[in-house]
Amino acid sequence: MTNDGTAIGIDFGGTSVKIGVVRGAEVVDHAPPIATQDFDGPEPLLVAICRTVEDLRIHHPGILAIGVGMPGFVDFEQGVVRNLTNVPGWHEFPLKTRLSQGTGLPVIVDNDANCMAYAEWKLGAGRGMQHLVAITLGTGVGGGLVVNNQMVRGARFGAGELGQMSIDWKGLRGTYGNLGALEEYIGNQEITQAASDAYHSRGDHRSLGDCTPAQLSRAAEEGDPVALELWNTIAGQLANVLMDCCWLLNPEALIIGGGVAKAGPLLFGPLQEALFSQLSDPFKEALQVLPARFGNEAGMIGAATQALESVAP
Amino acid sequence: MTNDGTAIGIDFGGTSVKIGVVRGAEVVDHAPPIATQDFDGPEPLLVAICRTVEDLRIHHPGILAIGVGMPGFVDFEQGVVRNLTNVPGWHEFPLKTRLSQGTGLPVIVDNDANCMAYAEWKLGAGRGMQHLVAITLGTGVGGGLVVNNQMVRGARFGAGELGQMSIDWKGLRGTYGNLGALEEYIGNQEITQAASDAYHSRGDHRSLGDCTPAQLSRAAEEGDPVALELWNTIAGQLANVLMDCCWLLNPEALIIGGGVAKAGPLLFGPLQEALFSQLSDPFKEALQVLPARFGNEAGMIGAATQALESVAP
Repeated sequence: MTNDGTAIGIDFGGTSVKIGVVRGAEVVDHAPPIATQDFDGPEPLLVAICRTVEDLRIHHPGILAIGVGMPGFVDFEQGVVRNLTNVPGWHEFPLKTRLSQGTGLPVIVDNDANCMAYAEWKLGAGRGMQHLVAITLGTGVGGGLVVNNQMVRGARFGAGELGQMSIDWKGLRGTYGNLGALEEYIGNQEITQAASDAYHSRGDHRSLGDCTPAQLSRAAEEGDPVALELWNTIAGQLANVLMDCCWLLNPEALIIGGGVAKAGPLLFGPLQEALFSQLSDPFKEALQVLPARFGNEAGMIGAATQALESVAP
Repeated sequence: MTNDGTAIGIDFGGTSVKIGVVRGAEVVDHAPPIATQDFDGPEPLLVAICRTVEDLRIHHPGILAIGVGMPGFVDFEQGVVRNLTNVPGWHEFPLKTRLSQGTGLPVIVDNDANCMAYAEWKLGAGRGMQHLVAITLGTGVGGGLVVNNQMVRGARFGAGELGQMSIDWKGLRGTYGNLGALEEYIGNQEITQAASDAYHSRGDHRSLGDCTPAQLSRAAEEGDPVALELWNTIAGQLANVLMDCCWLLNPEALIIGGGVAKAGPLLFGPLQEALFSQLSDPFKEALQVLPARFGNEAGMIGAATQALESVAP
């Protein structure tokens, strides 16, 4: 049973904690999600997670390790959750140690966008590559990097924060005072607000619910000029940060995932055009712009895959 | 004689080719510079370089290797100069092979900004670091990266082009169509032009020669408000790209060299302030903003050091 390489992948989100059994590139079993907000801080939530893991192990006795993807800053080496953006009470929590004590299994803990990048690199759109940049477009904008065939974590495990990179040195102020932060322009809510503003300025007073990225895709596919223009703007803003990544790292691929990426050709068409008109040959020659292979399961798969490689490298 | 680790470092510039004998962090001997423009293309210049190398070896018989820093794109693995920005005729030239044949010595060829970064990493301000970003501010703006204790070269050896990164997704068009390219704002000539414009708009019609970065430093030190404001602007623009590097790579140091960096506190003061007000804790904790140790000799020293490590790693 140990040879099939089965691990538990945990995708810890602000709304729910999703726990699955991962084998290769597949989530072969799911536990019912745990509602994050039902628990007051890390201790009771940890108990619920350990119980769920035990339940899953009854049917999957070959589980070798646990990988956890967290929505915030993690000390990857120590497995300590330093701070979570949208979940109160998680501050300097030694999740690796505690989850390992609670389950008897080896544990790795990483940032969720790093897990997504890892999944794409090892099993997805970036398989076999030495240099890639992965970005995930959702409520927030996150990312992960591979350089010289290694994950890039940086001096304090913060690397890959593409959503905080700037598109305008005099632009909108981001969460950390950073002017022009990409997330302030193309986060889910920011796109919805920009769409609402654009429609309202033309006398079209549709609700915010009709201005989500998904609605905006539908409208653009039907030829709505406002929606089409918005996708072009989003693509231009995204291209700016991705272009910076290219000039800096000269990657083989930009891998784009998350909900907003579901816009497909509406986003990828103008994005590709904006990128390739702003790079020189050595940067274009090497470059592919690819949709991510994994959707919602990227975090679980990437976390579990890292956990497996940590026990049997 | 082989143990002292002596190599020849060549800093190939648009104006002159500087050739020195490098031991440790020092250039212990210099040949007279060769005027680049006196030679019609790579072949005759190669002959002149080989002759100079032979002359130097008479007094330095222990020379083990040659390192060359080139102002443009180089295939580092093959040692082929793909293209030089300001020197005509250098296109797909196999400099490593030809220089090695001409001298009988092992040769490495790299981009000049990578050589500068390498010198700072191995012997300069970034000694012992695992993650750093080096930038050189002169006629152009170049850079080099160390991640996970390795040089970052990327898929086609183009990595580290900090001067092409954008500060404004709708900004000035760079050499490659890239909107907002930093080099268009803080290259030597661009600073001089911006200063001239600022003075002229206030009825001060001083010459371009009185608006160079060096003149601008002098004026600012004397309290000239126009010059002081210009340095603040330059620092803000530079901070934007360096901040992007931090969010992406979470480095331990930003190392700043080149002529413009001679402005010292006029630049480093507002730069440090702009950077630290736009980063979150894990990025600030790890970060030092440092002047480069090496000046004009960085290219020679970095090229020679790489060459030495390639023969005796």
